[in-house]
Amino acid sequence: MASIFTRIINGDIPSYKCAENDKFYAFLDINPVQKGHTLVVPKKETDYIFDIDDNDLSEMIVFAKKVAKAIQTAVPCVKIGVAVIGLEVRHAHIHLVPMQKEGDMDFSHKQTFPEETMKDIAAKIASAFEALK
Amino acid sequence: MASIFTRIINGDIPSYKCAENDKFYAFLDINPVQKGHTLVVPKKETDYIFDIDDNDLSEMIVFAKKVAKAIQTAVPCVKIGVAVIGLEVRHAHIHLVPMQKEGDMDFSHKQTFPEETMKDIAAKIASAFEALK
Repeated sequence: MASIFTRIINGDIPSYKCAENDKFYAFLDINPVQKGHTLVVPKKETDYIFDIDDNDLSEMIVFAKKVAKAIQTAVPCVKIGVAVIGLEVRHAHIHLVPMQKEGDMDFSHKQTFPEETMKDIAAKIASAFEALK
Repeated sequence: MASIFTRIINGDIPSYKCAENDKFYAFLDINPVQKGHTLVVPKKETDYIFDIDDNDLSEMIVFAKKVAKAIQTAVPCVKIGVAVIGLEVRHAHIHLVPMQKEGDMDFSHKQTFPEETMKDIAAKIASAFEALK
C-alpha cells in the first residue's frame, strides 16, 4: 500500500504544498514543532534515507537547501534546523524547522495552527521558492 | 579564531576519530545522546549548513551516508537518525545518532561513556568505514 506521503504527493490526501520538482515534494508538517516546519520527501518511496542512492540523495539535500532558503524568507529565523528520524512513517523525509534558539527543534512539543495560518505560510514559502528559480 | 571543530580536525584538540577524507571529518560526540553518536564536519569552516555550496553539500551527505552505514555496523540499531541544529558551535555539523525507537534523538538527554568505551566504538566505526571503501 502507498505510504501516507505518496498519497499526499498524488493528491489523494490534501497538503499545504510548499515546493515540488520532478523528484521531490515539500509540504508543511501538520503537527509542526515551529511555525513553518516543512517536510521534504522523495517521490520515489524509500523507507530509509541512507538507502537512497548517492545521486538522488545529493539532489534531495540540494532541493532541501532551496526549500530552507524559501522558508527563511517566509518565516524569519536564525537558521533552519534539519532532522531525519524516520521511525514513524516508512517513507524517508527531511524535517526543516525554523529555529530562533537551541531547543526549538523539540519533537516532543508539537503545535497546531489555524488552517488560514497554515495556508498563508505555505503560500509564502511557495512564492519564495519560485523566486529562487 | 579557528572553531573548536577546526582545532579537532587539525589535531590540536584530541577526538575519537571515526572517518576522514579530503573534505570531511567524522568523530564521536563527547556528549552523545546515544552510544555511537557521531558528528560529521566539513574541513572548510562554514557556519550554516545551507551556506555550503551545492557540490560540497552533496559530497557531505554522501560522506555522512557512508559514515552512517559504518556506525550501524559498529552499533547495531534500527536506523541512524540525522540532525543539524547549529546554534551552539558556528561550524556546520551533521549529528548521526543510532536509533532503536522514537525519542532516541533527544538532545536534552546527553550521556557520558568511559574513555575505553568511546575508543572502542570509534575504532569499530573506523574499521567498518574502511571496509566500505
